[in-house]
Amino acid sequence: MEKNNKIEEKYLYQSLLEYQESDYYPFHMPGHKRNIEQLPIWNPYGIDITEIDGFDNLHDAKGILLDSMKRIANFRRAGESFYLVNGTTCGILAGIASCCSWGDEILVGRNCHKAVYHGISTLGLIPRYIYPQSYQEFYINSGYLSEKIEEMLTTFKNIKMVLLTSPTYEGIVSDIETITNIVHKYEIPLMVDQAHGAHFGMHKDFPVSAVEYGADIVVESVHKTLPSFTQTALLHVQGNIVNRRNLRKYLGIYQTSSPSYIMMAGIEWCQKYCASEKGKKAFDTYMEELHKLREQFTQFKYIRLFQPQKGVAGCKSYDDGKLVFGVADNLMSGQELYDRLQKQYHLQLEMASLYYVIAMTSVMDRKEGFERLIKALEEIDRELEAVNLRNNMKQLTKESVIIEFPIQNQQICMPFEADLAKGEWVDFREAFGRISKSYLYLYPPGIPFLVPGEKISEKVIAFVEKCKMAGLEIKGMDEEHLEVMVNE
Amino acid sequence: MEKNNKIEEKYLYQSLLEYQESDYYPFHMPGHKRNIEQLPIWNPYGIDITEIDGFDNLHDAKGILLDSMKRIANFRRAGESFYLVNGTTCGILAGIASCCSWGDEILVGRNCHKAVYHGISTLGLIPRYIYPQSYQEFYINSGYLSEKIEEMLTTFKNIKMVLLTSPTYEGIVSDIETITNIVHKYEIPLMVDQAHGAHFGMHKDFPVSAVEYGADIVVESVHKTLPSFTQTALLHVQGNIVNRRNLRKYLGIYQTSSPSYIMMAGIEWCQKYCASEKGKKAFDTYMEELHKLREQFTQFKYIRLFQPQKGVAGCKSYDDGKLVFGVADNLMSGQELYDRLQKQYHLQLEMASLYYVIAMTSVMDRKEGFERLIKALEEIDRELEAVNLRNNMKQLTKESVIIEFPIQNQQICMPFEADLAKGEWVDFREAFGRISKSYLYLYPPGIPFLVPGEKISEKVIAFVEKCKMAGLEIKGMDEEHLEVMVNE
Repeated sequence: MEKNNKIEEKYLYQSLLEYQESDYYPFHMPGHKRNIEQLPIWNPYGIDITEIDGFDNLHDAKGILLDSMKRIANFRRAGESFYLVNGTTCGILAGIASCCSWGDEILVGRNCHKAVYHGISTLGLIPRYIYPQSYQEFYINSGYLSEKIEEMLTTFKNIKMVLLTSPTYEGIVSDIETITNIVHKYEIPLMVDQAHGAHFGMHKDFPVSAVEYGADIVVESVHKTLPSFTQTALLHVQGNIVNRRNLRKYLGIYQTSSPSYIMMAGIEWCQKYCASEKGKKAFDTYMEELHKLREQFTQFKYIRLFQPQKGVAGCKSYDDGKLVFGVADNLMSGQELYDRLQKQYHLQLEMASLYYVIAMTSVMDRKEGFERLIKALEEIDRELEAVNLRNNMKQLTKESVIIEFPIQNQQICMPFEADLAKGEWVDFREAFGRISKSYLYLYPPGIPFLVPGEKISEKVIAFVEKCKMAGLEIKGMDEEHLEVMVNE
Repeated sequence: MEKNNKIEEKYLYQSLLEYQESDYYPFHMPGHKRNIEQLPIWNPYGIDITEIDGFDNLHDAKGILLDSMKRIANFRRAGESFYLVNGTTCGILAGIASCCSWGDEILVGRNCHKAVYHGISTLGLIPRYIYPQSYQEFYINSGYLSEKIEEMLTTFKNIKMVLLTSPTYEGIVSDIETITNIVHKYEIPLMVDQAHGAHFGMHKDFPVSAVEYGADIVVESVHKTLPSFTQTALLHVQGNIVNRRNLRKYLGIYQTSSPSYIMMAGIEWCQKYCASEKGKKAFDTYMEELHKLREQFTQFKYIRLFQPQKGVAGCKSYDDGKLVFGVADNLMSGQELYDRLQKQYHLQLEMASLYYVIAMTSVMDRKEGFERLIKALEEIDRELEAVNLRNNMKQLTKESVIIEFPIQNQQICMPFEADLAKGEWVDFREAFGRISKSYLYLYPPGIPFLVPGEKISEKVIAFVEKCKMAGLEIKGMDEEHLEVMVNE
């Protein structure tokens, strides 16, 4: 037995119970926002069963679970819907595996979640990347240009499927309607990672779901923007391009053979709520509040709410539920703003990036939360005039290397080849020119800016340094080291 | 949108709440047995958060989750322990992927859970099978003979890892101590699927955990036999043979990037309970009750409790917590006994097989449950003398084909090759001599008796017919059809 010294006395579950009682307000997922007055009161142990008589089997649903999923399909206007108890992650793996075999080519958005890369790598696929458009000044990914997708499909004739992220983490929705039509000309499936769009279609002012435009497979994290438990998600499938048997098979592989009835009941309750009169009214109120809230941001002198223009940079529509904001002229970094809101105001945001933060909202948000956010930002905005704050971000603006966003790396070999290759750990500052065996990413959002098989450029190194200086943690590497392929 | 007519009005969550209030007694997993008086009272929404400040990140644990998992490792005497929120399933996939690459050979127990086959197939491995010993008369798998394992490792020099199931679904434990020593002579890792043995070591009368004997990776379903939520499990690793970085990587691939804090808190509470004075006393009482209960079975004339002899048929030790019983002379099939207990006595058992049923017990069982079970069995035992019950199982005893258990199939090609091959669906009665593309299994326990790449023999067809006649559902096939490779 190895030594496990220095263990904190405090138990996780005790900390969770304390946190529940605290005054921290959640501007992050899950979308139920711990708003227990609006949520069902369940003893989780009381409803936690297994596949006993009368309660069906998720992996071969024929009874109560099939009916439950059919209601979801009707509500989301999909051909068929599946409960996912291992997050959107397992839906992505299953979707890819059901359409591609070892050695196949797949066209993917380079800003996809790491789960997509995991699928590519473990299944031995050849990725062809499409880079999204971007808002260079904020380091924000925008949508995909449909003409670029057409160009890729014309160039690479053997592509077996297309997998895109829409909306982005920041809420930008691509023109999925046009893209679906293009992809279908090539008789291959389009899968959309709509993880952040489970609430689409719940109100006319939200974007339209990719399901409505005919995307073949759509996965969405109900836990992110709707009142459902963390780890719950849905996969929708329609049309004849995807082999459904195959899809079911892989859903049975990447999900536990003992799926949680608490999770499934949670998704179902969420669907029932959203479809109910009460839910519809709540969405109306939520949207009104959102409009007001976004309007209130215009009063600020330094704090800027990100609002992309529709029709520009591949942005077809935008999710107003995402509050993406930063401070003008980098008077304050994303991390500083995030920390300030957390420590001083007990407002827990979803994420901090170099130049902005994200506050996630949902239909379960309370007026009190929005008011606290605006009040806090008013104070910070006023203080930003003070000189002592002016110089904080100097190091971020004085750049020796200009990093174009998104960073585009040279792909030397396939991810699975890099996986199989011998590796060594080197200081990231000395990794120039080496081929990565690591995924490097900020979490959230979990989108790798360096993927196994890609060459490490000056820009990647500069970006790592920049993030470290701004206090952001890079996942996929140790404090200073990352794994690269051994030079042969 | 496809038509989804005829949907039952009843919602899953409503049925779960009703079931919770019913008088059904659970002789099945999860091990918390819905014994809410002994369990914590949590509002699941209240403690359901995401990776916010102070709450660590399961996929890169450094704080409260790392400490929580260290406590588990100390308690289970493992080198390192990991929470699994996607069941033992994901632990099996990650364990295999961390030790084997595409094309590698792996020695596996042929009675492994389907998750093992999924790992083999999706990772393109070459399985070498070791069949367990068996109790022919009950169709029950027993343990592995260590000398057979040695023989396999001598014959197949390129085996990269050994993966065995111990205990079996029926509670039989192999001689893991001897087996570990043999496997380590070849400098390869031994992984033990101890899914049904999370309670091992909690009382001296339970078998010893494979961790204690030095198995390199051990996975256990805490939800099966301990008071924890369905879908929760643990992976333990120790020693220097397994590459831990690699293991962590794959645990991050096969589990959602949004792991549930409810699940993790549930595992932690379970550990704390088992280690507490209250828990230890409860295990003492439980063991006393078990001894009494097993003694009470000796009074029956027809109902027979399965009790393997230690040291025979590869059985090193046995889990007395599993009540495996059937009716002498097949006066009643497993399914009939199961149905009778369920419908007439509202005792929900874990599973029915051809010749026996399994009632699972746990430290959360109540005296009332054991009393109801014995009372019901007393009645049934008395009634079994009646003539009208004597002929029910005739069809099962008059066999035209003698099916030796376990069925041993001829392996024609590798599972991944069968996966890639073209398939067609044929009537199972006409599948003789064809090569399977399907996994066929009873669920529970989910152990395939036919695997892709195996030739379909007369015995397989006879077994399918036999199960169907006994009212057991075969998973992996439609009512009458299964998928086979197209003859070339």
